[in-house]
Amino acid sequence: MLDSTLDTLDLHTLGQEMYSLIEELYPICRSITGDGFRETLCRIQRFIPIAVHEVPSGTRVFDWTVPKEWNIRDAYVKDAQGNRVIDFQRSNLHVMNYSVPVKRRISLAELKGHLFTLPEHPEWIPYRTSYYEEGWGFCLPHRQLLTLIDGEYDVCIDSALEPGHLTYGECYLPGESQDEVLISCHACHPSLCNDNLSGLSVATILARHLVSMSRRLSYRFLFIPGTIGSITWLSRNKSTVSRIKHGIVLACLGDSGGYTYKKSRRGNADIDRAFGHILEHSSSPHRVVDFSPYGYDERQYCSPGFDLPVGCFMRTPHGQFPEYHSSADDLNFVRPESLAGSFQICLSVLHLLEHNLVYVNRNPECEPQLDKRGLYPSVGRYQDPGRLRLAMLWVLNLSDSKHTLLDIAERANMPFGLILESARLLHTSGLLIPHRAPLGGS
Amino acid sequence: MLDSTLDTLDLHTLGQEMYSLIEELYPICRSITGDGFRETLCRIQRFIPIAVHEVPSGTRVFDWTVPKEWNIRDAYVKDAQGNRVIDFQRSNLHVMNYSVPVKRRISLAELKGHLFTLPEHPEWIPYRTSYYEEGWGFCLPHRQLLTLIDGEYDVCIDSALEPGHLTYGECYLPGESQDEVLISCHACHPSLCNDNLSGLSVATILARHLVSMSRRLSYRFLFIPGTIGSITWLSRNKSTVSRIKHGIVLACLGDSGGYTYKKSRRGNADIDRAFGHILEHSSSPHRVVDFSPYGYDERQYCSPGFDLPVGCFMRTPHGQFPEYHSSADDLNFVRPESLAGSFQICLSVLHLLEHNLVYVNRNPECEPQLDKRGLYPSVGRYQDPGRLRLAMLWVLNLSDSKHTLLDIAERANMPFGLILESARLLHTSGLLIPHRAPLGGS
Amino acid sequence: MLDSTLDTLDLHTLGQEMYSLIEELYPICRSITGDGFRETLCRIQRFIPIAVHEVPSGTRVFDWTVPKEWNIRDAYVKDAQGNRVIDFQRSNLHVMNYSVPVKRRISLAELKGHLFTLPEHPEWIPYRTSYYEEGWGFCLPHRQLLTLIDGEYDVCIDSALEPGHLTYGECYLPGESQDEVLISCHACHPSLCNDNLSGLSVATILARHLVSMSRRLSYRFLFIPGTIGSITWLSRNKSTVSRIKHGIVLACLGDSGGYTYKKSRRGNADIDRAFGHILEHSSSPHRVVDFSPYGYDERQYCSPGFDLPVGCFMRTPHGQFPEYHSSADDLNFVRPESLAGSFQICLSVLHLLEHNLVYVNRNPECEPQLDKRGLYPSVGRYQDPGRLRLAMLWVLNLSDSKHTLLDIAERANMPFGLILESARLLHTSGLLIPHRAPLGGS
Repeated sequence: MLDSTLDTLDLHTLGQEMYSLIEELYPICRSITGDGFRETLCRIQRFIPIAVHEVPSGTRVFDWTVPKEWNIRDAYVKDAQGNRVIDFQRSNLHVMNYSVPVKRRISLAELKGHLFTLPEHPEWIPYRTSYYEEGWGFCLPHRQLLTLIDGEYDVCIDSALEPGHLTYGECYLPGESQDEVLISCHACHPSLCNDNLSGLSVATILARHLVSMSRRLSYRFLFIPGTIGSITWLSRNKSTVSRIKHGIVLACLGDSGGYTYKKSRRGNADIDRAFGHILEHSSSPHRVVDFSPYGYDERQYCSPGFDLPVGCFMRTPHGQFPEYHSSADDLNFVRPESLAGSFQICLSVLHLLEHNLVYVNRNPECEPQLDKRGLYPSVGRYQDPGRLRLAMLWVLNLSDSKHTLLDIAERANMPFGLILESARLLHTSGLLIPHRAPLGGS
Repeated sequence: MLDSTLDTLDLHTLGQEMYSLIEELYPICRSITGDGFRETLCRIQRFIPIAVHEVPSGTRVFDWTVPKEWNIRDAYVKDAQGNRVIDFQRSNLHVMNYSVPVKRRISLAELKGHLFTLPEHPEWIPYRTSYYEEGWGFCLPHRQLLTLIDGEYDVCIDSALEPGHLTYGECYLPGESQDEVLISCHACHPSLCNDNLSGLSVATILARHLVSMSRRLSYRFLFIPGTIGSITWLSRNKSTVSRIKHGIVLACLGDSGGYTYKKSRRGNADIDRAFGHILEHSSSPHRVVDFSPYGYDERQYCSPGFDLPVGCFMRTPHGQFPEYHSSADDLNFVRPESLAGSFQICLSVLHLLEHNLVYVNRNPECEPQLDKRGLYPSVGRYQDPGRLRLAMLWVLNLSDSKHTLLDIAERANMPFGLILESARLLHTSGLLIPHRAPLGGS
Repeated sequence: MLDSTLDTLDLHTLGQEMYSLIEELYPICRSITGDGFRETLCRIQRFIPIAVHEVPSGTRVFDWTVPKEWNIRDAYVKDAQGNRVIDFQRSNLHVMNYSVPVKRRISLAELKGHLFTLPEHPEWIPYRTSYYEEGWGFCLPHRQLLTLIDGEYDVCIDSALEPGHLTYGECYLPGESQDEVLISCHACHPSLCNDNLSGLSVATILARHLVSMSRRLSYRFLFIPGTIGSITWLSRNKSTVSRIKHGIVLACLGDSGGYTYKKSRRGNADIDRAFGHILEHSSSPHRVVDFSPYGYDERQYCSPGFDLPVGCFMRTPHGQFPEYHSSADDLNFVRPESLAGSFQICLSVLHLLEHNLVYVNRNPECEPQLDKRGLYPSVGRYQDPGRLRLAMLWVLNLSDSKHTLLDIAERANMPFGLILESARLLHTSGLLIPHRAPLGGS
């Protein structure tokens, strides 16, 4: 299950593929609703089967309401000479996302009330939204703001904010068990790469990888708008969320920083322990941080009424890199090799979850005689046994129907892969049998 | 509840008042029984309503017996010339507390068997007692001892040790709930300031402060003789001690050292966590130490038959400052500002206990939409949210009927006051309701 | 119980006795079966009563089979001149243990396929075995190997590998209770001192010491061949192993390294806590390490089907000293004083286990009045109480039927001996009574 390629992944090619997908999606003007989101799902469908769901504006989803749908064709600010001094066609970040339609001539003074800049980064365009309060605005480099001269400006935002739908995509890959792994990413940001075309591309290529694998667990990939998307999905799937035994929110996976895993609210769910274990045994810089109720859609999955075992996997977390939510989060900020590394960690975690079973030692009284089964050299000055043999002894010692392989790997302080290999050898030799049923999902 | 003044306390004035009370009580010769103790309670009654209890000598209290009552009018040692070389009128510490009556002429050699000094601090008079074994003695500076010349001395202790009563004072302030906070101090030491006129004055002014406050909890202040007083009180109130949900012994609160909180025997009672939290979030030097069965009256409250959640709050602990139990623990050793700081910590802890309720998030499934209730700015480049908003998210996330506000403050690593403020905003907006009943007292 | 000599042990003489026993046993060629093992038990029987058990070859013991019995009279390699260039009579390590009989003339080239050396220690003879795969070999110093010239050699191993018996010895010392302490050592190594004549001699002298003591617990000493011996013993005593409440495997106790205690699989059994406590309060270098399923016979006692509370006490662990399993583990490598120190730690641990009872404070409500019972000075400027009095207060405070004396010693951070002394004083004075029954064994 998920085995065949873990050691033979062509990470270089995978990194390039993920990066190319980001390049392709980068120009599209996405928002939490609208055609940009639909177009994005459409492109992803080339890689994986996605069910596209449309939820009408006005639908109540828990405490929230699905907003009107937003679409935009063009937007600009023209100076007295008719020059487009701010032009949506050059960057979709120039328009505050969800701006209502505007077509007016106004003074610079009035205009300034609708302009947003980042004085500390005068060359960058900020990313701004106003989803739940109607308004309009333009975002521009601070340096450019300083060059605007007094006078009248023609302001045009050719947008539509009307009843329509919220769109999201769902890719479900059934496994032997109904127990699910939820993998969720937000796909609502326009031309921003790390946040979150990186998460979206890792999720897509991960799903494509799993499609052809044999799977013990079922997998559900969600491509949703942030916050309102997870709230909408949860409100429509309340009766089946208990199948989710493990979950990850993917975001900010393309920068060159070390890995960050943010634990679920539970703090000791299998997903938390799996990421902790894989990262600890990787040679990469990383940190594991506690849950807090701020961040991405784990906020909703971990709300007290659900309390799902869902963590969040990132490299540099949102808000902790200067380029965050600005035009500097561009195609130069993310790297194919960073995406590939993130992919590899994710796949290692999924591989662990697939194989984290409970076995039972059929000879629990004293050690079985390994040498007569070819598992142990019989002649020999007793030296420190090889790592594999020590791993076999750990698996035998702790396979008492109460320990998963991850429990054993943690106590032995050995990589899960080595413990798994030992369990397989022992299983093959008849010394170990799978326990009737795996322990509870978390 | 206890709210109105926490931020507007006039600590300067409070410090002065506590110091003045110490000045007033300092000259009185107190002991574990007798008129000095009664006079002390009488002075405190000017501030707070106190019920005075008298327990007859000979009363059995658990393994102990209430001793005879001790009173003293005068005492001296006169030399051959009739000079009072040791004079109770100059300091009540000169007489060993509980000395039996004496009127004799004796040689210096015999006298020396009854003299106590501190050679390592030759200017200080030690404080000595002999409550449970009849005897007599004088205490004096070591330097003075060296000046006594051979010859006869007239020794007089004009005391009375006779059947009488043990006296203690009790100030009970009922609250909405019968759940009680016990605040206990020993009031049996004569002219000693830090140990324990400081504890007595902080307790008095704290009680006066609470008198006019609305109170969820009930408060019981005890002014008792050390050891025999708490034993007597416990033996007379066995049937109702289960109402005590939190308790503090106050002592040594006027010196200039950092704070010391000694945990209850339980080690994780609410009172232990509350002091730990308030001290951690104060900017003051402090340490929290584990329970040990030596110290003040917490020894009795935490005896295994009671095991009450009672800790001990001090600045420098007994025996850890050189002036301890000597004439150097005088009016110069305690400071108004030290008393005020101790008062403030106590009041903050009581405020926390008053408000440490359990709330329930009425929208547990996903986050409620804070912006439509004016609790969250809707426009905005996502930045690190303000501390108050993050505190609101923590309160919503953990208000699942299983967490007190202190639980939330600890997990969020935020000051209790901020968490409380968030809970109130959310309560006001209808997002949060108090849980049916607070969790158990500890 | 075990008391009379703990403080008056003549450790010097004990060390000499243990060392002399090692000297006596050193020349005997032991193996996991055979007359060398029997002879060893015979010598130990001079010190303690030992029941000798003989288990026929071919007996199934769990997953194992008792092997054929091995005996050897002589062995050598002669060069063309008839010189014994390798001679069993000079050191029994020269022959691979369990070598089948051989009598042949072979070339040096063929001979070399049967020779074992330690190139990194060219003067030492390695120790090799081949219990479960028939073969033969000689062990010699690497330097000597290099001197062998081409030509023919007469090889002779005058051994017998035939159906017979596996032998082990058992010394059972009944106590008041059927609860047992298991003390196990392997006695199957030939001329090797630290591993494990040291464990064997410490166990022997420990048993001799206990013979004449009054004992609350019962003691079972096992002198067994490694691995197959503990497996055989467990398979023959399955129905009664539940009596084992504490156990130790003794090995490598004569070198000059610090102490090492390896915890049982449970990790917090009384035996683990007892060794941790005694070592922590000793002034000796030591370390306590977690269980791992590699090592000595604790591997079998701690197999999941038994999971007995058995740890392993060593100085330098197997494989962590260069002399391990070589001729350098000789009479110079072990020291009488090292053996004596190991003995003392073991006896202190057994003393602790004997006395680790639960007491009940008969005056649980408030402190009892110690002074009226002569347990507490009544006059006195309150100073830091003596350690013994503080220990009494701890014992009174925690003797609530839920804490053993070890629990109390750990919480008070005081030596067990001091806590025990306090408990006895309080018991004598009637303040403390033994709890009906000791708590469970671990």
